[in-house]
Amino acid sequence: MHNGTVRIIPLGGVCEIGKNMTAIEHADEILVIDSGLMFPDEEMLGVDIVIPDIGYLLERADRVKGIVLTHGHEDHIGALPYVLRQLNVPVWGTKLTLGLVRSKLEEHKLLDSTELHLVAPGDRFNIGCFDIETIRVTHSIPDGMGLAIRLPGVTIVHSGDFKFDYTPLDGKPVDVPGFARLGEEGVTALLVDCTNVEKPGHVQSERVVATMFETVFRSAKGKIIVAAFASNINRIQQVFNTAAEFGRKVVVVGRSMAQNIEIAEDLGYLKIPDGSRIRVEEIPDRYPAELVIMTTGSQGEPLSALTRIAVDEHKKVKIEKGDTVIISATPIPGNEDLVARTINHLFKRGADVIYDPIAPVHVSGHGNRDDIRLMLSLTRPKYVIPVHGEHRHVAKFIELAGDMGIPSDRVFRMEVGDVLELDGEGARLGEKVAAGDVLVDGIGVGDVGDVVLRDRQHLAGDGMFIVVIGIDRNTGAVVAGPDIISHGFIFMEEAGELIEEAKAVVLATLDELVVEGDATEWAAAKSDIRSAVAKFLYARTHRRPMVVPVIMEI
Amino acid sequence: MHNGTVRIIPLGGVCEIGKNMTAIEHADEILVIDSGLMFPDEEMLGVDIVIPDIGYLLERADRVKGIVLTHGHEDHIGALPYVLRQLNVPVWGTKLTLGLVRSKLEEHKLLDSTELHLVAPGDRFNIGCFDIETIRVTHSIPDGMGLAIRLPGVTIVHSGDFKFDYTPLDGKPVDVPGFARLGEEGVTALLVDCTNVEKPGHVQSERVVATMFETVFRSAKGKIIVAAFASNINRIQQVFNTAAEFGRKVVVVGRSMAQNIEIAEDLGYLKIPDGSRIRVEEIPDRYPAELVIMTTGSQGEPLSALTRIAVDEHKKVKIEKGDTVIISATPIPGNEDLVARTINHLFKRGADVIYDPIAPVHVSGHGNRDDIRLMLSLTRPKYVIPVHGEHRHVAKFIELAGDMGIPSDRVFRMEVGDVLELDGEGARLGEKVAAGDVLVDGIGVGDVGDVVLRDRQHLAGDGMFIVVIGIDRNTGAVVAGPDIISHGFIFMEEAGELIEEAKAVVLATLDELVVEGDATEWAAAKSDIRSAVAKFLYARTHRRPMVVPVIMEI
Repeated sequence: MHNGTVRIIPLGGVCEIGKNMTAIEHADEILVIDSGLMFPDEEMLGVDIVIPDIGYLLERADRVKGIVLTHGHEDHIGALPYVLRQLNVPVWGTKLTLGLVRSKLEEHKLLDSTELHLVAPGDRFNIGCFDIETIRVTHSIPDGMGLAIRLPGVTIVHSGDFKFDYTPLDGKPVDVPGFARLGEEGVTALLVDCTNVEKPGHVQSERVVATMFETVFRSAKGKIIVAAFASNINRIQQVFNTAAEFGRKVVVVGRSMAQNIEIAEDLGYLKIPDGSRIRVEEIPDRYPAELVIMTTGSQGEPLSALTRIAVDEHKKVKIEKGDTVIISATPIPGNEDLVARTINHLFKRGADVIYDPIAPVHVSGHGNRDDIRLMLSLTRPKYVIPVHGEHRHVAKFIELAGDMGIPSDRVFRMEVGDVLELDGEGARLGEKVAAGDVLVDGIGVGDVGDVVLRDRQHLAGDGMFIVVIGIDRNTGAVVAGPDIISHGFIFMEEAGELIEEAKAVVLATLDELVVEGDATEWAAAKSDIRSAVAKFLYARTHRRPMVVPVIMEI
Repeated sequence: MHNGTVRIIPLGGVCEIGKNMTAIEHADEILVIDSGLMFPDEEMLGVDIVIPDIGYLLERADRVKGIVLTHGHEDHIGALPYVLRQLNVPVWGTKLTLGLVRSKLEEHKLLDSTELHLVAPGDRFNIGCFDIETIRVTHSIPDGMGLAIRLPGVTIVHSGDFKFDYTPLDGKPVDVPGFARLGEEGVTALLVDCTNVEKPGHVQSERVVATMFETVFRSAKGKIIVAAFASNINRIQQVFNTAAEFGRKVVVVGRSMAQNIEIAEDLGYLKIPDGSRIRVEEIPDRYPAELVIMTTGSQGEPLSALTRIAVDEHKKVKIEKGDTVIISATPIPGNEDLVARTINHLFKRGADVIYDPIAPVHVSGHGNRDDIRLMLSLTRPKYVIPVHGEHRHVAKFIELAGDMGIPSDRVFRMEVGDVLELDGEGARLGEKVAAGDVLVDGIGVGDVGDVVLRDRQHLAGDGMFIVVIGIDRNTGAVVAGPDIISHGFIFMEEAGELIEEAKAVVLATLDELVVEGDATEWAAAKSDIRSAVAKFLYARTHRRPMVVPVIMEI
């Protein structure tokens, strides 16, 4: 590696949406940007979250100087506890971001052992050899920032998750001059959020939602329920504002919603007018027309408040005919089904449900095409790395950059583990490093891999069929069983005949084997039993449960 | 029941999308409209299809006079084999519909025993006491029809799945005068397709897709792959037409696509110019720019052709840089994730992917709001039943009808099993009948219910943990095991310690029990072991595998 070489190594968040984490390496020092989690996809049965594989960092632990967090969304801070548990390094972030991080570290009992550094957008400071400047951006959570990382001969800019909101609710707009100044100075490489590259034009300001809220609140006859992301502090502020405007009280439902509101209000990011909030127990004391219920569940998450309310499983909140429900979010790809289901249940119970795109009750936190073009215009980077998008977003981005005169050989389509080397001579992809997904299930981290997932998928499809046989260790004769235990395969109470026949198949298979009481024989016997039973069951049912023969030597 | 009373009983396809089936009852005779299937939702693990529960019909089997099929989509004919197996009644349908039905009945070995009656749109005939007239409609499959069912004093009209396409590819437009005539005569109740009631305006004609195809085909440099629904014969015709226009040969890939094309061509619904189709084996003999691959997989279905091509698992078709893939369909709700995944894989391999709404390469087969308004205007029904929509569509439909002066007490929000009674005095909901879902898994029909599904979901989440113990039937002493067999729970190769501790927990639990060699004692013993092991495993892993204790008496 050339002395002045700077290496950019995404460990997550490229060609995928989620688990954002990037390592910047220079002169034997490493800076980490973000440590996010990703939610598991459909096939990752039973998995709670997915985090980046940080093996590369662990092998160079002494070189890692710190982690800078761009903002407080889970896909940027959600893996932090797991990272810090293995790599105790200092963390830098803005006030709200660190407020959310503190709460997380407390849950994981890591707060006391972690060094947290508070920064404000616009600050400039050093982490090791990295000269860092933070630039305010607007997003769907307050206090987000982009980063400029200056090194000898190389300046890297990370856009953070951004939109150009010129009329943000908190009065703190995106620092356009800041990005322009960087472009003037010279940006070697720009990592840019390309989530909404498929959407034309300029994404709307958060303020337009207020107008829509007013329209809905004005005509709503019963109680109003608003579901939004618990982290969307500005949206929550708008709900409180509009509720106050129409003389309604706000009830907060949902643990993460209540927790985030507490943190945001404590730190000054949310202003709740005195007396405008009441407790959930007070709902029966009020007319429906006096209420706004602010809740989680905008993604149709199975155990969330709105989902339970929709199926009448919430003890305190019931849907009544004439209620209005506003789903102030759009489904994250993959959640469309869950959201649709919740919407149907709400309609079924007599509520009027208002959701995007039927009515504009949500705006995205990510910039559309013209916003991305503006970011490229301001920063005028030599090289570009589109981040926070999937392959199709990256492909569209390369087209967009091409239209602006940035040739495709200066846009790097990076995947997790790819290495971009920057130096005086230019930029090139170096040798890949090990990187990927680590699955978290319960408190176990990383042990759920292909084998376990494949088994879960098999069990999920057709259940299990266990055959237990007791065999005399000396004679090889069957002295107990075969007993059959089965779950998730077939309705057992009507399968009596099938079970008896399966037992006969097992016995017939054993008869054909010459059993010598040897462990290797057992392996062969089990294999034969498994095949014979599986074949029999498939012929009779066209189903393939997991057949598990158990032989007990007695 | 009043002598002249007509009862409308939806057995599927209301407040849900799929398994369309409606029973019309009058004077001890029953007419059935459609027998469709529904695809399982996410929680129905391992289930292949969902069909309507026809218990109501089976209890009155001698009264059922026949089944009329509105068109050949799976959600209208897919359950037919399962219905006919239990209820052998004659079936009426148009030429293409019966062509597809024949193929299905042949697979199920029911073709010889089924009486099929060919009708054409515009025909009028009797089935028992039911005076039936068929009216041509346009949809995303040719040869679809609506129905008028005349009974003394009551006329019921079923719109079928419809759109108003005035320039259909096959030159057979929707019979607007036919519906107008019915309205003139007097329609008591209209069952109307409300799938696209959330979409404003008038849905576009199939022909606009041809224009888009031309644009894409004109500029495509490599081979072109078009994915579409195998039943969308008109779309397939447009692919053949455009391919011929640009001098490309068409290769058909995917079993259902090939099968449907064969049936459609045989019956005259598809015209394939001589020499325009070549076999998949000839692909290597041609330049990419000479090829169009017509394939299944527009829904990202896991085993479909396009999905396999996208992950490079298709032996004959490989993606090369510069290829163009057109996804000529939109994701059915629930499939967005699968389709997005396929699109990403294709982009990753260097294809340019064209999909809705980035480019209009698909139009829906269902009418939008203005089309629904037109249907209501033409038929002027006294009562309306919105069908083929979920709760949210029905709610929007009631609004739309209200805007047109149809009060909500004349629109019936019916669910499966509801009964609408029509007679000289009006219409009212009668007593519900038993109806619902029957799950089909492999060749088993109806046995996969709540218990089996719940077990599959448990196994899917955290796998299984089997504890096998051999106990002396006389002394109650443990003579073999405990052996642990586990799948889908944890990575066993690193869980040695956990397994040993689990065995200790089992032995400790058994020590505390006074075992008398009695079956009821075993039940208690198993229950104690299950609790103790589950508690132990949860404390150590925060996972809840299905714990299955097996006690063998020896």
